[in-house]
Amino acid sequence: MIIVGERINATRKHVGAAVSARDEKYIIKEAVEQEQFGAHMIDVNAGKAPEKEVEDMKWLMDLVQKHTKLPICIDSANAKALEAGLALNRNGRPLVNSVTDETARIEAILPLVKKFDTMVVALLIDEKGVADTVARRMEIADSLVNKILKTGIKVEDIFVDPCIFPLSTNGIYGLDAVESISKIKAKFPGIKTTCGLSNISYGLPLRSLVNQAFIVMLMTAGLDSALIDPLDKKMVSLVYAANALLNKDEYCMNYITAAREEKLT
Amino acid sequence: MIIVGERINATRKHVGAAVSARDEKYIIKEAVEQEQFGAHMIDVNAGKAPEKEVEDMKWLMDLVQKHTKLPICIDSANAKALEAGLALNRNGRPLVNSVTDETARIEAILPLVKKFDTMVVALLIDEKGVADTVARRMEIADSLVNKILKTGIKVEDIFVDPCIFPLSTNGIYGLDAVESISKIKAKFPGIKTTCGLSNISYGLPLRSLVNQAFIVMLMTAGLDSALIDPLDKKMVSLVYAANALLNKDEYCMNYITAAREEKLT
Repeated sequence: MIIVGERINATRKHVGAAVSARDEKYIIKEAVEQEQFGAHMIDVNAGKAPEKEVEDMKWLMDLVQKHTKLPICIDSANAKALEAGLALNRNGRPLVNSVTDETARIEAILPLVKKFDTMVVALLIDEKGVADTVARRMEIADSLVNKILKTGIKVEDIFVDPCIFPLSTNGIYGLDAVESISKIKAKFPGIKTTCGLSNISYGLPLRSLVNQAFIVMLMTAGLDSALIDPLDKKMVSLVYAANALLNKDEYCMNYITAAREEKLT
Repeated sequence: MIIVGERINATRKHVGAAVSARDEKYIIKEAVEQEQFGAHMIDVNAGKAPEKEVEDMKWLMDLVQKHTKLPICIDSANAKALEAGLALNRNGRPLVNSVTDETARIEAILPLVKKFDTMVVALLIDEKGVADTVARRMEIADSLVNKILKTGIKVEDIFVDPCIFPLSTNGIYGLDAVESISKIKAKFPGIKTTCGLSNISYGLPLRSLVNQAFIVMLMTAGLDSALIDPLDKKMVSLVYAANALLNKDEYCMNYITAAREEKLT
């Protein structure tokens, strides 16, 4: 399981303020701590103010990579911001987050993925909107994944994101996500899956508890990666335990090492 | 998910001593607290000293039922102890734990299940030993469940326990358990599953963390019940969250209520 640290996102109030103020100290702390607490990749989203996104992305990419060697998940719906971020990338192979099955985004973003030889998140949205049922997810995945594959991008470089909806609005949304992950993995052998899972708990009390149970459920269904807060120590601990239980951690060595280093709770 | 409180087990050192000393206060506290922290059923195991098990079971059954109205999981391999416990049962429909696919146990225990109209745990052990692969589990389940059904016991009163082995001895044992639960549920529509899950974490650090992740994984596969420690607040919390996520908690009302009552963490 690849933990993508979600904290450096300028749409979050304090991060947005730090970006506007060019507050290096704040951003450096977010980068360093996420690595220290178990992130394998750092998400960088500069999408606070559209007119400044390109400049903000450049500032963030340069700063973050000065303070962590982790690869970056470059997060934007704007191809110009993605391109600016990609041009500054120097921390290993990045993940472009994201392309959708909308013509304009496909045409703008897939060429960047090819040019910079990156991995890419395929978000299950098309011209009709966001996938909100298992059937719609499979319909969009079928269309979008095949378009991506046709460009020559490898199946193992595609991370399908099924789009998570709040359980508080419909009791089936948790199970739907589990089923979608499992079906997508079965349909496209070698493909990867990811998600920003915290949407599931919107409107419920003790949100991190719901997120913690949900990540274990999605991992059981085959989830390969997730955008989470690595500073949620219990969440990271459950990911380590689930990795071992799913036989993805030989002799439980990563689990045992992390426990010894007091990273788990 | 039915949480069976596992604490009143005389093979545990302090409980065994309390049973020998007829320490009512100790046992009452264990019964009351387990109910208070979320158990739906209380396991009673008097199996400390074989020659005294029948007397110890009678003492425990009488005492525990004076202090909780929860139904009892009467836990013994000894038909005499089970019968003594069943004769004293007054807290609703009990669960007999357990019968195996060994002729002597079938002949001694199934008549009690019929006579007292109880539910029963079907532990996947036969004359050749304990099931330690998915294939052996399915072989024993097929034989044992059909023998139980032939007596007229209803499928929904059978709780199959797949027998959990320590992950530290073989990395496949977690996934095997998940697959077994899922296959047993699919093979016998309406059947229930249960397990004593803490064996999974034997030999690993931070055992309760492994157990917490494991119960969510097994619930995702369809687990209906588990023998756990209700005083592990995080474990109980994850069970509430997973129930909601699996659409087994309408409008998340049990989850929301438990959160309001500060039962969750």
